[in-house]
Amino acid sequence: MIKIVVDLKGADKPQEELIYGVVKAINEISDLSIVVCCDGTITNILAGYEFDKNRLEIIDSIEEITNYDNPLRAIKEKPNSSLVLGLNYAKENDDVKGFVSCGSTGAVLVSSIFLLGKLNNVRPALASVLLQANGKRLCVMDCGANIDCKSSQLKDFAYMGIAYMKTLGIENPKVALLSNGSESKKGNELVKETHEIFKNLDINFVGNIEGKEALSGKTDVLVCDGFAGNVLLKTIEGTAITVFDELLQMAKQMGTEGTLIINAVKEVSKKYDYNSQGGALLLGVNKVVVKGHGAATSETIYSIVKMAYELGKNNLIEKTKSILSE
Amino acid sequence: MIKIVVDLKGADKPQEELIYGVVKAINEISDLSIVVCCDGTITNILAGYEFDKNRLEIIDSIEEITNYDNPLRAIKEKPNSSLVLGLNYAKENDDVKGFVSCGSTGAVLVSSIFLLGKLNNVRPALASVLLQANGKRLCVMDCGANIDCKSSQLKDFAYMGIAYMKTLGIENPKVALLSNGSESKKGNELVKETHEIFKNLDINFVGNIEGKEALSGKTDVLVCDGFAGNVLLKTIEGTAITVFDELLQMAKQMGTEGTLIINAVKEVSKKYDYNSQGGALLLGVNKVVVKGHGAATSETIYSIVKMAYELGKNNLIEKTKSILSE
Repeated sequence: MIKIVVDLKGADKPQEELIYGVVKAINEISDLSIVVCCDGTITNILAGYEFDKNRLEIIDSIEEITNYDNPLRAIKEKPNSSLVLGLNYAKENDDVKGFVSCGSTGAVLVSSIFLLGKLNNVRPALASVLLQANGKRLCVMDCGANIDCKSSQLKDFAYMGIAYMKTLGIENPKVALLSNGSESKKGNELVKETHEIFKNLDINFVGNIEGKEALSGKTDVLVCDGFAGNVLLKTIEGTAITVFDELLQMAKQMGTEGTLIINAVKEVSKKYDYNSQGGALLLGVNKVVVKGHGAATSETIYSIVKMAYELGKNNLIEKTKSILSE
Repeated sequence: MIKIVVDLKGADKPQEELIYGVVKAINEISDLSIVVCCDGTITNILAGYEFDKNRLEIIDSIEEITNYDNPLRAIKEKPNSSLVLGLNYAKENDDVKGFVSCGSTGAVLVSSIFLLGKLNNVRPALASVLLQANGKRLCVMDCGANIDCKSSQLKDFAYMGIAYMKTLGIENPKVALLSNGSESKKGNELVKETHEIFKNLDINFVGNIEGKEALSGKTDVLVCDGFAGNVLLKTIEGTAITVFDELLQMAKQMGTEGTLIINAVKEVSKKYDYNSQGGALLLGVNKVVVKGHGAATSETIYSIVKMAYELGKNNLIEKTKSILSE
């Protein structure tokens, strides 16, 4: 049995709506058990669903950490919050493989690092997995946890990204550095220094790639500092939304004929809907931690619970430890 | 009469093809005169076109600076290249308002700065103008000339971007900083320091914006270091291309019905075709300098010549000098 702790508070939508994602995951995955942290009144809602009740526990927690709370003080100030109770439970129970939350990013990061502890004393980082044009996955690392970085951190990001992609089944993941040009001399000071380090590591380093090529399938892991990673991810998202909106507006003016365009846009845009796809992964702590989008729906919860389950089952933490110790 | 110098060498396409852009510009703009730098054999091609030959001079230059030349040594090593001869002509003739080239970016930047001289001793920067979703223009500054920057440089970028947007007719341009979050505390060290400086300047500072909002119309000038600016621009371009390709592939499988989608994509994608739209502007030197894409067509040449003409006619340099001296 793979046990996952789910923090249902701190998201935009109420727990009553999100809980369906938990029920769906239990019904679809037979060796999944869940500990959900939320207001105990959820039992009223759960009574209406059919599922294996032996595989769900509830940690009653009324207190909620919001985006207005200082992430650094959240643990002390709200010790009975769903986030803190959930992480403590995960920490104290060896059979818990993962933790999932859609609450404040800062609070989830800081509290996870503090309560679960770092792996091999690395600087934990946020990894996002995107779908590339060819359907292959791309892990962008870091995508916002560490804004100003040193090259030694980027090295750890590369190793953690490799472990992650290996857990997803990619044998010898390609690693690239995000830069302002593909030539090895291109980059800011950080990238140029890191490029020299990567060249001499025993990894499948394919060199620098530009933002233009991020979705082109040239790499599996794209390493960057959290500032550049955040610019990259949000620009991909924003550009896709802008392009789809323009096409939809054009289609709407066309009447019935436009339906064809609307359907095509709907189909292609699924790939760029990061909300339904799941969440970012906090790598470098002692459990699988998935941070879902604040605007999560029950479908997001289902998707990130499944993600945590799969990574837990396929031993992400052990793989990461082993690669970091090499 | 507005005089523009056009360097026709160093681009991917031959001068014989690109020259038509020059002819088209002369035929469309009655107070434009052009000095074209290229192999003198171009007269054979020009003989076949109808245009006012009094408004075209040729500087015969066989030598070409390519992407393989070291930009820092290009002036010394190739003093008779089209780039160097053209810039020298621009420098020595007060009636020349602008210079246009599609050659090696590094060589165009370095040679322009060295031969034309800096405005008020600022660090020159590359500005790109994009079309936003609402049709408004966005000036991204710097987009690749200065990779590692100081906050004092970002301040100059803001002033130069404001002068540029004023020249394009925007009264009181909004200025934003590219960051990893819209809150004032978000950003890397450079952005946080610059935010504090911008708050106290007499400019229309609207705060930080994320990559997601770059095309949303929230600002007219988007300030960043050249690394982040390059990631932003190339990611917009790459994402748009990827999305359009996916839609086109889907459309092709649909047979005749797909034509509707293909036409819609063609229409919307024009906005994201930076090649036909023109080029980046080097701000901070003593003439208008437009750097076109290496893959320029004659249409690109026409478009960037027109851009240089308009900025020269509307006194970009004088406006920039005046704002930088305030």
